[in-house]
Amino acid sequence: MKLRHVVESQQFTLPMLMELFQIAGQMEKVLARGGTQDYQSKIMASLFYEPSTRTRLSFESAMLRLGGKILSTENARTFSSVASGESLADTIRVLGDFADVIVLRHDEVGGAKRAAAVSSVPVVNAGDGKGGQHPTQALLDLYTIYKERGAIEGLKIAIAGDLAVGRTARSLSYLLGKFDRVMIYFVAPDVLQMKSDLLDHLAEHDVWFALESDFSKILPEVDVLYQTRIERERLGDRADQYDEIARSYFIDAAKVARMKEGSIILHPLPRLNEIAPEVDGDAHAAYFRQTRNGIAVRMALLATVLES
Amino acid sequence: MKLRHVVESQQFTLPMLMELFQIAGQMEKVLARGGTQDYQSKIMASLFYEPSTRTRLSFESAMLRLGGKILSTENARTFSSVASGESLADTIRVLGDFADVIVLRHDEVGGAKRAAAVSSVPVVNAGDGKGGQHPTQALLDLYTIYKERGAIEGLKIAIAGDLAVGRTARSLSYLLGKFDRVMIYFVAPDVLQMKSDLLDHLAEHDVWFALESDFSKILPEVDVLYQTRIERERLGDRADQYDEIARSYFIDAAKVARMKEGSIILHPLPRLNEIAPEVDGDAHAAYFRQTRNGIAVRMALLATVLES
Amino acid sequence: MKLRHVVESQQFTLPMLMELFQIAGQMEKVLARGGTQDYQSKIMASLFYEPSTRTRLSFESAMLRLGGKILSTENARTFSSVASGESLADTIRVLGDFADVIVLRHDEVGGAKRAAAVSSVPVVNAGDGKGGQHPTQALLDLYTIYKERGAIEGLKIAIAGDLAVGRTARSLSYLLGKFDRVMIYFVAPDVLQMKSDLLDHLAEHDVWFALESDFSKILPEVDVLYQTRIERERLGDRADQYDEIARSYFIDAAKVARMKEGSIILHPLPRLNEIAPEVDGDAHAAYFRQTRNGIAVRMALLATVLES
Repeated sequence: MKLRHVVESQQFTLPMLMELFQIAGQMEKVLARGGTQDYQSKIMASLFYEPSTRTRLSFESAMLRLGGKILSTENARTFSSVASGESLADTIRVLGDFADVIVLRHDEVGGAKRAAAVSSVPVVNAGDGKGGQHPTQALLDLYTIYKERGAIEGLKIAIAGDLAVGRTARSLSYLLGKFDRVMIYFVAPDVLQMKSDLLDHLAEHDVWFALESDFSKILPEVDVLYQTRIERERLGDRADQYDEIARSYFIDAAKVARMKEGSIILHPLPRLNEIAPEVDGDAHAAYFRQTRNGIAVRMALLATVLES
Repeated sequence: MKLRHVVESQQFTLPMLMELFQIAGQMEKVLARGGTQDYQSKIMASLFYEPSTRTRLSFESAMLRLGGKILSTENARTFSSVASGESLADTIRVLGDFADVIVLRHDEVGGAKRAAAVSSVPVVNAGDGKGGQHPTQALLDLYTIYKERGAIEGLKIAIAGDLAVGRTARSLSYLLGKFDRVMIYFVAPDVLQMKSDLLDHLAEHDVWFALESDFSKILPEVDVLYQTRIERERLGDRADQYDEIARSYFIDAAKVARMKEGSIILHPLPRLNEIAPEVDGDAHAAYFRQTRNGIAVRMALLATVLES
Repeated sequence: MKLRHVVESQQFTLPMLMELFQIAGQMEKVLARGGTQDYQSKIMASLFYEPSTRTRLSFESAMLRLGGKILSTENARTFSSVASGESLADTIRVLGDFADVIVLRHDEVGGAKRAAAVSSVPVVNAGDGKGGQHPTQALLDLYTIYKERGAIEGLKIAIAGDLAVGRTARSLSYLLGKFDRVMIYFVAPDVLQMKSDLLDHLAEHDVWFALESDFSKILPEVDVLYQTRIERERLGDRADQYDEIARSYFIDAAKVARMKEGSIILHPLPRLNEIAPEVDGDAHAAYFRQTRNGIAVRMALLATVLES
């Protein structure tokens, strides 16, 4: 697979996704052996315009497990050049002399695409802007569903929580829509429902979806429950209903008991009060396995762009 | 020696301490050879909820000298997940997928113990909370005394300065109490004296100790003088006496001249105005050798938990 | 070449510069091969008292390309020991136990010299104070001129912009003055002209120089145009003339068209509005090649001090 940059979910075709999963599976074996030193001459630069320590450390761990090396900047807003007004293009051009791949978290939608356009080395989008994309998160989500369920085709998948700004919900929806007979339930309070541009995209591609607000009703129906966080301030003039909404979307043991056998719960983490800790030990709870899969998927992506 | 986590001084028995010192001695030889690559497939994560650059860099240097690799976060309060309210348990579970050992500086007493309880990889306590523990500092202090004096048994040791909140003073006292015929002088202004829980612990274990406030009187008596800092604001309603107290506890060449031959001065560093620079070149001054020993001791601890 | 510390431009003699350029040329070949693992047992500590992410990452990339390892602190003002009042001397002494070379960015003129005086390992000055030095930047500037033009002797070089506080302009001037028949034009608004101490130094060493304020007039004359930034607030009571001055110093395609064939434009970067992006693709534009040369020059310096 030739892969120059990782900018958005849509760039991945079905064959690319299948090949990526195969490589990720091999990377799991590499991880079980304690990693490789194959990429010891390669440097990855973490360029984060906003802090996202978990995503940064996940990429850095993946690069170290490949044997590679790291240049890190935790918060590029304080990147002295950026603070002094340097353009993203100049920053990327210079970093391309320092590193072999740039992992970019940018604070504007489209930042990754602009960076990729001028970069002399591969750029991997680690999230760009509110309502932008976070393709590697979506790829690890998809890989987790694939691993846990054996296939994506024909699955009933609920994506729940705040879907209006959720980068991961958006990026994942694009990917799910590529698979046959997938049924997507967007489960959210009205004010936080998935935006129409994404729904239009799915409709154009003949993907089945439904909008729901009743979390409880959907629960026994689905094979995959993708939970995300709802924040009080995001509810606008319904903020006074936050406690009631949070309670109805809260996953505890009682709710899990109503789920189908073999169904799984995912969450991009961190969680606040969306899933009770009592659920962690349940077989349905796949969210910590999901994090672990993130290392293998990011190793696969980094190795692929470094080879391309 | 089997060692899963390093949480508190008390967990180390005398035989474990002796074995640790033996390993630290070997690590000094490894350092003299320029380090090893033996742990090149291992990753250490530095998770610091409050900044402590010296401690962080000491651990990171130790891990690099072992050939290992590092994931670093300078100030985990800005760890985006933590900032958004993620529990310590969730953070630790996720980091356990990214790294082979977690070095944790936490801002609450007992943080390291809570982390160890849920971690899939070893947790090393790099300080937890005011009045909590800092066991690796105490171990390197003890190792330094052992190296400089040949044995701990029978030594007269003064621990001076602010003992009420001093993590290192507390952790070191627990360790010293394990050795035969040790005599500990706690030398501090009344308001900053060692707390009764620690004194009760020593009394229960038949350890000889005395409370003193006259620094000058103790000086010629002891084999080891462990100096720590006194801060003006800590003196409460005696703050106006700060200058006088600071002067009487200040170690200069004149005071050193009154010390026993072969006695040593330790300090956990950083120092502000507790020891005059003119003392640095004196044979009694062991505080820079102490820092250096920290690398070997931390290499020994990291290697041990990574092998266990 | 024996080189213990890199503190200031003046310490480099002509033979040292020539040898450094030779080593840098070899390092470019090492880079083309993907780096070396020769220095895998060596640790470089980045100790930055003020953030300068580009300089830090350039040094760290150089060390990683040598196979070495890194201890990093992005902003040592928050170095907990420093924040608590530790002296630079103590910090340096302790870091010398953690690392094999210290790269220091200090906020006071002379900081690097003070650090070198007490350090047990080599200290490399990565900029010290406003109006201090930044010798490695000057060395990479000089190396770029040498590479692009084949020699330094006999060149006409304009150094333009804010020369009153420009560390790089000062450090570069010291170096240029060592070469035969060099002609230096200092091109700046009066209030930002090069200070007399540096001009006196050049006069004493029989270096030809001229003070100019007319950027346009100098443009067709020179072989090398070294551009730096002018900031509005630096103009004092001429701040209202900022737009006019900025325009007259702004390099666009029209201005480049007036330059001599084979002449080059340098800039220490980051740029704000000193050079139009339309110039980037022009053969005269050497500023991105300059950044790249920085890696090779810093590899050469690090390797040399680590061997000395």
